Amino acid sequence: MSYKAAVITVSDGCSRGERTDTSGPSLCRIIEEMGYEVTHIAIVPDERELIAEELIRCCDDLQVNLILTTGGTGFAKRDVTPEATMDVIERETRGIPEAMRAVSMQITPCGCLSRGVAGIRGCSLIINLPGSEKGARENFNAVKGAIDHALKMIESDGSANCAGN
Amino acid sequence: MSYKAAVITVSDGCSRGERTDTSGPSLCRIIEEMGYEVTHIAIVPDERELIAEELIRCCDDLQVNLILTTGGTGFAKRDVTPEATMDVIERETRGIPEAMRAVSMQITPCGCLSRGVAGIRGCSLIINLPGSEKGARENFNAVKGAIDHALKMIESDGSANCAGN
Amino acid sequence: MSYKAAVITVSDGCSRGERTDTSGPSLCRIIEEMGYEVTHIAIVPDERELIAEELIRCCDDLQVNLILTTGGTGFAKRDVTPEATMDVIERETRGIPEAMRAVSMQITPCGCLSRGVAGIRGCSLIINLPGSEKGARENFNAVKGAIDHALKMIESDGSANCAGN
Repeated sequence: MSYKAAVITVSDGCSRGERTDTSGPSLCRIIEEMGYEVTHIAIVPDERELIAEELIRCCDDLQVNLILTTGGTGFAKRDVTPEATMDVIERETRGIPEAMRAVSMQITPCGCLSRGVAGIRGCSLIINLPGSEKGARENFNAVKGAIDHALKMIESDGSANCAGN
Repeated sequence: MSYKAAVITVSDGCSRGERTDTSGPSLCRIIEEMGYEVTHIAIVPDERELIAEELIRCCDDLQVNLILTTGGTGFAKRDVTPEATMDVIERETRGIPEAMRAVSMQITPCGCLSRGVAGIRGCSLIINLPGSEKGARENFNAVKGAIDHALKMIESDGSANCAGN
Repeated sequence: MSYKAAVITVSDGCSRGERTDTSGPSLCRIIEEMGYEVTHIAIVPDERELIAEELIRCCDDLQVNLILTTGGTGFAKRDVTPEATMDVIERETRGIPEAMRAVSMQITPCGCLSRGVAGIRGCSLIINLPGSEKGARENFNAVKGAIDHALKMIESDGSANCAGN
């Protein structure tokens, strides 16, 4: 069975058409290489409520298994993707952003500045990634090897048994 | 003085007697090797309220110094040990699960998927560990060297002075 | 342009004049070597409300860019600096304490015991550091290289573009 994925680009500039989104398409390619199907893409401005609404739509209506966001994880006033994500998730999965930042820190001291979070809502796993294409790819690659197992666990009734479980 | 410890296995299967709990006994052995006394063990199903009740009993009534839980930290629908733990702790100790996951990630990419948390309630330190025996032991071993100092600090009135304090 | 910084020592003993604060002055020197101006220093007791008030004053009234606290991040009953900080910040920046603890763990197993948090309120970045002079310096040095970029991002309207963004 193939998992369904959504990629949401969070950016004022991209949503107004002033900037070209390269991070979103880049993440779509990685996801497809993993054998998942990208069934939804969206570009939303850096507005907490709009981001939260889009996430809820992906989880509750479209029922995608994996939602990647790119952008809005920095320190600027309008960077609120983590806050919007916390508004909608039911269970946090802190090890995912921890692992991404740990790898990122090996590349640049600014790696610790991504405020991204991750968590589960219903049967969907939401992961925040940085806005830059390079940062988004590097961060996602740091946890890519665990995603298949994560999505399988979410769908299971009981608790799975694995070394990292 | 010897510290008192409790080990709580969180598992639907084990609580119904359908599965044999090996993680709990394994953790008991590690704790006894550390010179602590295991004064309480329990097996509870994956129910947020029941887990929280058991944790409160260990902290408030039994006043054990260290409470280890095993199980319920994954992504399955009924994995809610971290949520139950957050319900009862007064002060989070995030460095403990961070350190456990960092070590776990060196063993398996799934290491980032444990959602375990840790924190203090009264004079008790609660630490969530994965459900698998191997994962529980690996995770606890990653922070074992800091537990003595942690329990000593909890009992002190003022702030202790150590490099990691 | 030079950034303004505040250093707040949180310690019952130091606030009563029973202990000499060496961590605060040590942090001031590091900050000045970075080219920032220390415009405010304070010593407050381990009281959640007093710590929170002092932080708010630094952010809202004095509008300093960077606030470092030292002390109150341990496990003792009166260690409540992280809780006071969570009370006042608007957006958490979890990668900063994660990076500090990861480096600290390489020095001592007790490195995982600092409960420090970090976050943004208005245009100010608040970072909790341990109380010992050695611990405070080691922790801050672990993220020092990212602070300039962090403070620049906080002041920007849109999201900055960097690998770690």
